[in-house]
Amino acid sequence: MSYLIQKALIPVGQGYDTVDVQIIGDRITAIAPQLEPIGTVIDGQNKLLLPGFINAHTHSSEMWQRGLIPPLPLELWLAELYDSAPLDPEQIYLSALGTAVETLLSGGTSVVDHIVLIPGKEADTIAAAVRAYREVGIRAFVAPLIQDEPFGSGLPSSGLPANGGTPDAESTALPSTAAVLDWVQDAIEQFHNPAAQINLLVAPTGIQLCSDALFEGCIGLSERYDLCRHAHLLETKAQQLLAQEKYGCSAVAHLQQLGYLDSRTSLAHCVWLSDADIQILADTHSTVVHNPLSNLRLGSGIAPLLKYRAAGVNVSFGCDGSASNDGQDLLEAIKIGSILHNITDFDYRQWISPRTAVEMAALGGATGLNLAEQLGSLTIGKKADLVLYDLTNLSLLPGTDPIGLLILGHPVQPVDSVWVNGRQIVSGGEVTTISVPQLRQAFLDRSQWQAAAHSPTRAVLEAQYRSIMALQPHL
Amino acid sequence: MSYLIQKALIPVGQGYDTVDVQIIGDRITAIAPQLEPIGTVIDGQNKLLLPGFINAHTHSSEMWQRGLIPPLPLELWLAELYDSAPLDPEQIYLSALGTAVETLLSGGTSVVDHIVLIPGKEADTIAAAVRAYREVGIRAFVAPLIQDEPFGSGLPSSGLPANGGTPDAESTALPSTAAVLDWVQDAIEQFHNPAAQINLLVAPTGIQLCSDALFEGCIGLSERYDLCRHAHLLETKAQQLLAQEKYGCSAVAHLQQLGYLDSRTSLAHCVWLSDADIQILADTHSTVVHNPLSNLRLGSGIAPLLKYRAAGVNVSFGCDGSASNDGQDLLEAIKIGSILHNITDFDYRQWISPRTAVEMAALGGATGLNLAEQLGSLTIGKKADLVLYDLTNLSLLPGTDPIGLLILGHPVQPVDSVWVNGRQIVSGGEVTTISVPQLRQAFLDRSQWQAAAHSPTRAVLEAQYRSIMALQPHL
Repeated sequence: MSYLIQKALIPVGQGYDTVDVQIIGDRITAIAPQLEPIGTVIDGQNKLLLPGFINAHTHSSEMWQRGLIPPLPLELWLAELYDSAPLDPEQIYLSALGTAVETLLSGGTSVVDHIVLIPGKEADTIAAAVRAYREVGIRAFVAPLIQDEPFGSGLPSSGLPANGGTPDAESTALPSTAAVLDWVQDAIEQFHNPAAQINLLVAPTGIQLCSDALFEGCIGLSERYDLCRHAHLLETKAQQLLAQEKYGCSAVAHLQQLGYLDSRTSLAHCVWLSDADIQILADTHSTVVHNPLSNLRLGSGIAPLLKYRAAGVNVSFGCDGSASNDGQDLLEAIKIGSILHNITDFDYRQWISPRTAVEMAALGGATGLNLAEQLGSLTIGKKADLVLYDLTNLSLLPGTDPIGLLILGHPVQPVDSVWVNGRQIVSGGEVTTISVPQLRQAFLDRSQWQAAAHSPTRAVLEAQYRSIMALQPHL
Repeated sequence: MSYLIQKALIPVGQGYDTVDVQIIGDRITAIAPQLEPIGTVIDGQNKLLLPGFINAHTHSSEMWQRGLIPPLPLELWLAELYDSAPLDPEQIYLSALGTAVETLLSGGTSVVDHIVLIPGKEADTIAAAVRAYREVGIRAFVAPLIQDEPFGSGLPSSGLPANGGTPDAESTALPSTAAVLDWVQDAIEQFHNPAAQINLLVAPTGIQLCSDALFEGCIGLSERYDLCRHAHLLETKAQQLLAQEKYGCSAVAHLQQLGYLDSRTSLAHCVWLSDADIQILADTHSTVVHNPLSNLRLGSGIAPLLKYRAAGVNVSFGCDGSASNDGQDLLEAIKIGSILHNITDFDYRQWISPRTAVEMAALGGATGLNLAEQLGSLTIGKKADLVLYDLTNLSLLPGTDPIGLLILGHPVQPVDSVWVNGRQIVSGGEVTTISVPQLRQAFLDRSQWQAAAHSPTRAVLEAQYRSIMALQPHL
């Protein structure tokens, strides 16, 4: 298919130009003030064309738990998460559809799904998500979330009896490191298909629940299959304490020693890093994925984004899973992930401008997936992953600076059209590849209005957590 | 008119009940599991009914400047604001319509408009906003923003030459304190009409630009006409420095000495208060209006909300003007204004739950306007200011805890119906009292796509500001 988007606004320098943009096959083939019509002609007047953003970290299946978990820190929130996780691959399929739709309608053309695997149905979980992403046509980076240590080992010790709060049974049920790596290898062989916009990533959950052997196995798979690497990193203060206890050094230093950090490595959160850690990320060309909304919702803290930028560390944005956000609106993550840092430095010259935020969300995201040559900017020869925003949307009026309105405002369904790999999959604000009304009905059929959750596991962990964090004892 | 809302979910304790809610005239007249149909019957199934929220601080005319001003601290942002302010009362009318529409469609039934007055057209400005609010039918609290000191006096001294950056001409053009108070009194006499849902407030902009005589004059008007009081308070660190320089004590202590603080007084921002200041707010039963998005956008800081709540200070939420947010989505302000504070205290038991946030936004807002007996909860006998949310909206699915989804999610046009004073003014997600398409066209006709602003006044102020804030010199 070919397209000519006529008379669209695009950002150029610090201003805007009105141009025609030509798409042939999967590529942007021309950008000029006026081009010959070709293929389908799209009216770009009063519209803004931007490169698609990357939702660089989420967990699609958490969509089933959004709104459900009360405000809790990560370590207690996780207990609620596990206790209410979906267990049916059909749910995984539906929530991947939902995540793809919300990402597309908020400016994203790619999604990194650090997908939570249903115990005993790991392959089915991955297959269900891949099926959904292929149907929608979004560019997907499926990152099976793996661990080989029991849940209770994710907390530092606290002076309480060892294994306090961790059901002993859990460790015996855990699969071996080798078995976990086998799932990932099988998934790679079955599903990794960049030409079809489905990419697999190696993705240990993080240092808190993974052995060195698991990280090393993932490095091996990454090298063998030329895959990007993903993980959570130092989301909470408790994880910072745990790393010191587990390794005698920072988590970042340890991951560097293992060889996990690389220009193909993206790391979600990165809230509790020292200046030395930040330098390691810069030296290894690793990417930080900033998830501002979940960092606030879980009380994790503010990632030192201005320090990352000053050190030359690449940064992109993620929504994180819907149980800790609880939306999948990428524009919201970009807005809050930009303005949040204005309170961390009085010198406004360091603040992230809306234009810089757009670049981080697009090119920064592409860089973190080792695709900066292919994606992330309006450049002739790059893949046509593009989003056209309707500037006549009431939420973007009166019209002033389009990027300022889009990033600092509160856009309501501003996306008019989306192309992924040259294929138009959103038109007139509607996803054209699947039936969104059917998806809505499927969700509704599986819905139950209920009060916020309170899991028994959380109650068990609470005393240990409060001791670790030096909070007043649990009464 | 009468209404029966059938089978709606309402929050009760920590759970939900399904009830019928009867509205007769301007009041909620019955709430019970099943009531006799009366008047217009509304299907409340799969819908959540909540008391209307109060958008407790905004500046409607800033809608003309949204998206326009780059990320800057308040003091420099203000220079941009003044240089690009709308000057035509017809614009004031349109932006008040827009502010009312966005407030209604994000759960608000009342708006406090700290309205920026067009110089020389003060009465026309107020008249235009009042006309808009009456047409829409929202409950409006019009608070004419007044000052009697020149713009340059809003900064503390910095060792630079006195009046550095302030055009001398400005002070001579300023109206006298008496003239300013006369405008306000005229506006009160002409427009204050609670029975028609139009309320006037006295509203000096804040200590940074107002004399003691102006505050005292406002106290007099407040007492004479039984009006609530409003002002900005300690939004920035520069204002905290200024107050010490101007009064030799904190701004809060000074306002208390003047007698401005009262159970009818609501104060926007309150970011830079000491513990002693917080106690004064508690002692005087003053209300804090939290504007989290503008506090981030302008780098002002995080208002110590958990301290306010611990001290028993009433807190409500505001969007603030669209030039510093840049939306008017009250649900966004409530979400960010809740989760932002999770990073200020590791003890999650102090965190603001979604249910508490709803109570702050509704009853907290009503309390700050001295209307807690009339508004802010689903109580028989109170005014019917109600919002019905459609829980089958894709952005709120899959369905879990409705209030969790609404407050922590990213709802996209979730409002089905709104009643103000017993009158339904939103139905099926559409405002029924004005033509929103016409409003959109009027905005579009007055729109111009342009790059972010850069005012000459800002450039003049920048050296002084950087010196005050001990930032590296301006080069």
